[in-house]
Amino acid sequence: MLQRKKISVIGAGFTGATTALIIAMKELGDVVLLDIPQLENPTKGKALDMAEAMPVIGSDVRVTGTANYEDTANSDLVIVTAGIARKPGMSRDDLVNTNAGIVKTVTEQIVKYSPNTVIVVLSNPVDAMTYVAYKASGFPKNRIIGQAGVLDTARFNTFVAEELGISVEDVHGFVLGVHGDDMVPLVRYANVGGVPLEKLISKERIEEIVQRTRTGGGEIVGLLGNGSAYYAPGASLAQMAESILKDKRRLLPAIAYLEGEYGYDKLFLGVPTVLGANGIEKIVELELLPEEKAALDKSAASVRNVIEVVK
Amino acid sequence: MLQRKKISVIGAGFTGATTALIIAMKELGDVVLLDIPQLENPTKGKALDMAEAMPVIGSDVRVTGTANYEDTANSDLVIVTAGIARKPGMSRDDLVNTNAGIVKTVTEQIVKYSPNTVIVVLSNPVDAMTYVAYKASGFPKNRIIGQAGVLDTARFNTFVAEELGISVEDVHGFVLGVHGDDMVPLVRYANVGGVPLEKLISKERIEEIVQRTRTGGGEIVGLLGNGSAYYAPGASLAQMAESILKDKRRLLPAIAYLEGEYGYDKLFLGVPTVLGANGIEKIVELELLPEEKAALDKSAASVRNVIEVVK
Amino acid sequence: MLQRKKISVIGAGFTGATTALIIAMKELGDVVLLDIPQLENPTKGKALDMAEAMPVIGSDVRVTGTANYEDTANSDLVIVTAGIARKPGMSRDDLVNTNAGIVKTVTEQIVKYSPNTVIVVLSNPVDAMTYVAYKASGFPKNRIIGQAGVLDTARFNTFVAEELGISVEDVHGFVLGVHGDDMVPLVRYANVGGVPLEKLISKERIEEIVQRTRTGGGEIVGLLGNGSAYYAPGASLAQMAESILKDKRRLLPAIAYLEGEYGYDKLFLGVPTVLGANGIEKIVELELLPEEKAALDKSAASVRNVIEVVK
Amino acid sequence: MLQRKKISVIGAGFTGATTALIIAMKELGDVVLLDIPQLENPTKGKALDMAEAMPVIGSDVRVTGTANYEDTANSDLVIVTAGIARKPGMSRDDLVNTNAGIVKTVTEQIVKYSPNTVIVVLSNPVDAMTYVAYKASGFPKNRIIGQAGVLDTARFNTFVAEELGISVEDVHGFVLGVHGDDMVPLVRYANVGGVPLEKLISKERIEEIVQRTRTGGGEIVGLLGNGSAYYAPGASLAQMAESILKDKRRLLPAIAYLEGEYGYDKLFLGVPTVLGANGIEKIVELELLPEEKAALDKSAASVRNVIEVVK
Repeated sequence: MLQRKKISVIGAGFTGATTALIIAMKELGDVVLLDIPQLENPTKGKALDMAEAMPVIGSDVRVTGTANYEDTANSDLVIVTAGIARKPGMSRDDLVNTNAGIVKTVTEQIVKYSPNTVIVVLSNPVDAMTYVAYKASGFPKNRIIGQAGVLDTARFNTFVAEELGISVEDVHGFVLGVHGDDMVPLVRYANVGGVPLEKLISKERIEEIVQRTRTGGGEIVGLLGNGSAYYAPGASLAQMAESILKDKRRLLPAIAYLEGEYGYDKLFLGVPTVLGANGIEKIVELELLPEEKAALDKSAASVRNVIEVVK
Repeated sequence: MLQRKKISVIGAGFTGATTALIIAMKELGDVVLLDIPQLENPTKGKALDMAEAMPVIGSDVRVTGTANYEDTANSDLVIVTAGIARKPGMSRDDLVNTNAGIVKTVTEQIVKYSPNTVIVVLSNPVDAMTYVAYKASGFPKNRIIGQAGVLDTARFNTFVAEELGISVEDVHGFVLGVHGDDMVPLVRYANVGGVPLEKLISKERIEEIVQRTRTGGGEIVGLLGNGSAYYAPGASLAQMAESILKDKRRLLPAIAYLEGEYGYDKLFLGVPTVLGANGIEKIVELELLPEEKAALDKSAASVRNVIEVVK
Repeated sequence: MLQRKKISVIGAGFTGATTALIIAMKELGDVVLLDIPQLENPTKGKALDMAEAMPVIGSDVRVTGTANYEDTANSDLVIVTAGIARKPGMSRDDLVNTNAGIVKTVTEQIVKYSPNTVIVVLSNPVDAMTYVAYKASGFPKNRIIGQAGVLDTARFNTFVAEELGISVEDVHGFVLGVHGDDMVPLVRYANVGGVPLEKLISKERIEEIVQRTRTGGGEIVGLLGNGSAYYAPGASLAQMAESILKDKRRLLPAIAYLEGEYGYDKLFLGVPTVLGANGIEKIVELELLPEEKAALDKSAASVRNVIEVVK
Repeated sequence: MLQRKKISVIGAGFTGATTALIIAMKELGDVVLLDIPQLENPTKGKALDMAEAMPVIGSDVRVTGTANYEDTANSDLVIVTAGIARKPGMSRDDLVNTNAGIVKTVTEQIVKYSPNTVIVVLSNPVDAMTYVAYKASGFPKNRIIGQAGVLDTARFNTFVAEELGISVEDVHGFVLGVHGDDMVPLVRYANVGGVPLEKLISKERIEEIVQRTRTGGGEIVGLLGNGSAYYAPGASLAQMAESILKDKRRLLPAIAYLEGEYGYDKLFLGVPTVLGANGIEKIVELELLPEEKAALDKSAASVRNVIEVVK
């Protein structure tokens, strides 16, 4: 039987709310925005404000705010943005453990009410939190996905499109590994409408763009002065959601559970995937140059370190 | 010669930023987000974050942040959201005068760099601020427009669609006059796909929906606890922008300068308009029932009072 | 479990093919275009040509052509455009009986492979053919729908928008009854953004627009010289499909099975409906003026006459 | 001053009409469909049918049919699909000369009424007809463009997406040179989301896909039995139109006038271009392997041969 799809977004901060907005604007399905009981009213307020935007957008979806997991029942997709940001004086391990606790609790509640859903995790640090969600859910690996490379790739593509004065639709970068310093941009594979990037931009300039991408999150944090990026992260999550909900089978970088792929076992790492109705439909294995493999090894090691903290 | 359109949004607070985001997502043209020099970096940060969302949205527009009006030069449309919110202990007259000063300065700068643009004003109190922009710009009346009824109508339509379990695309309310308590909802003209609302919902329930619309801004403020609505206001401004930039000639409520229409002279008031390439293409005059005219008179009087403060 | 939706279009003539194209462009689901075995190759050719358009449209749907009903299995929606056009010298009764035979066979095949689908009928004469599909399917009445008023309304709205120089998005006409001469335009309910049409256009001019709508199909036939309209009919069917497949619950005129509504029993007639995931979610009953009821009676009588032929 | 864009499509056959429909559905601007006086009524009929589809599509554009070039005045873009198809017994030279005469006359009329427009040519044989339009228009080279590679690339991408079960949005092929047998697919540059095609599909299978692309037009002709493809060609022209009208600056293959690029002088040939507000904003030069250069030489020679006929 036909029925409207349902997407729950856990965490109604800027990123969660922006993700919910873009998903609602795309008319992908009804959206439930959930945050903790102490934030129930603001969460309801944001959701109501979004719902009131739908008539002018022309999108027929319900957007509701709640603090009650029952309202997420039978979601087709759940996006987890919950977690705290690192505060001054907080050690990385404290952050990891605090957020691990949050993601574990969130996941248990999701699974209770939506045992067949796909879960996309953004909570920070995302590789480790994807692992926590995997363990807490007991889901098969294809239904647990972390966001990493879509955002990095979006930033890389923005800079390249600007550099060349060309449509963003034709720039195709690809970023693997973890977000941030250990990001692995596959510049070899980057292209503009099929034309290798290296034919269009000098090596030095590409390296500057890679470096800007690597520190792209920090650039926004530095400018905002108070807080971090949420528009591009929200749009990136919405793109992953669209590919899954419409079974578009986009080839997108995502954090997937590897069992031998790329030479890693039992590890969540950012790799090229095909996202469709089953979540991760496929992991695409690329040949890597020795220096790319070394960079990915570094990414993997950094993920393992954080996982150790969680355990 | 073909060229990309350019839209400047003055004020990079939540509403200004959300408006910029939705306009950019609709690929209506390049967007310049401007705020005061003290907020230059956060403004640049928000704009960059939006620009980095465009590759995943697939929209080819530049989004830039600035504190320099030169960057708004040759805008096709300028949206003014600048102004302060009323603070505890501040009298209404203080608010009016502070924002009048801001809108006057903003308008002079806009006009200096974009002498042929259309200006849409949202700054609060919007009827009076539209008047200030009119005076400061020296523009013909069709190129100065205030936002009021689109948002009120969006809220009304949301509540009706929810009540009837029907598409938001088929609910057509119409709200005149000023925003808030003196709003004049033309319930007689409201319909669902052509079917008069009064045939579908009881009179009592309609009255409740009208009342909820009237206090719709306050409902969001109450829930958020800290701040006011920005998603539906941003979407409403984006809808007006789209109608103007694409010359769609939508029939939308807007604050227009009346010279005899509805029996008012030299007054900005929310009335049905046709919005197209020239801004306000037409003011549509409806027959009003005595009680509707009385309500509109009250709206008009309230606008005149605020204008007195400005003068 | 998430999965892509599937829509089958029976009859690959101009209307069927255009409907399939627009549905595919809207990315509503995979499309199967089916025609008789003698036309298998051209049907495959049209479908392949459409499929090859999808990369530039950016729509991830499969479009396939076939003459084999097995390929329609598990459709969520089936649109029936099959049937012959009236040929010179052919009596109306011959046409009715020939097409009744076609629609009966088509329906039996559809039901065999998609027992839970919703069926939308366009075959001519559509009221009677909807009845044939109802009988042949054994489906509950909500899952059998005929297209009539969406197209008539689209034409009416086009003429009004042109007359007033206003957006087509704001014109809301409503046409009941049967297609063509016995069409019942509810001019009283027609409005532009909520403003009654009668306030905007003179009575005489409205009557001319009504008359042009009534003969709208003939106007196209006269101009083409050889064949009849297919763009607006295809777009109309696609709009009904979208409302059903996305559960938008649009209020649209459609041919529905009446059991007492509007004073008719066991009759398919064009009335205001809400179209959603269950097909016809609701029949909306409007108060009619005596002359409107008389016109609808005439429509009803004309439908009954054709049904007699079928029986 | 803001104003709606205007696009004229010359030739109201299946391809011209489909192009007009898709451009109108995308709301890129008002569309004028023009054909010869003998076909004035059918042309008006098709345009009216399209116009009547716009209310359900929600697109605010006028679509008009005409046989009078005055109605194309001040077009921003003109698409030329006029010309006859090769008939049995007709030599290639006869076809070339007949269509050259048609394109020359059409171009002179276009230029008379729209001296600043951009012209996109599809008439067959397209390389030579683009040359004819160039000569007849006296336009600078950037404002004369032929369609070739977008369609070939769309077909190639369709087959690759189907082969891999992957989104069409992520397949990026690139086809240079002339349409048909002498097409030069740059398989080296083809990729799926950045991943080289050769890593994903065997060499043999790629060669089959290339061959199917090469004969893609013939495959449709063979299936249809009577006529040739128009959906994918129409969508391809609409994509080029969108990139120009919205100044998207897509990197798309197009037939451009070469003056030294790729080693050819004063020759129209299919090469990678950037399409924006000025038409061809840039020709992108790729390094070619010797065998690719040889294939492109063959394409070039075949274009020169046809040009000789025209002269």
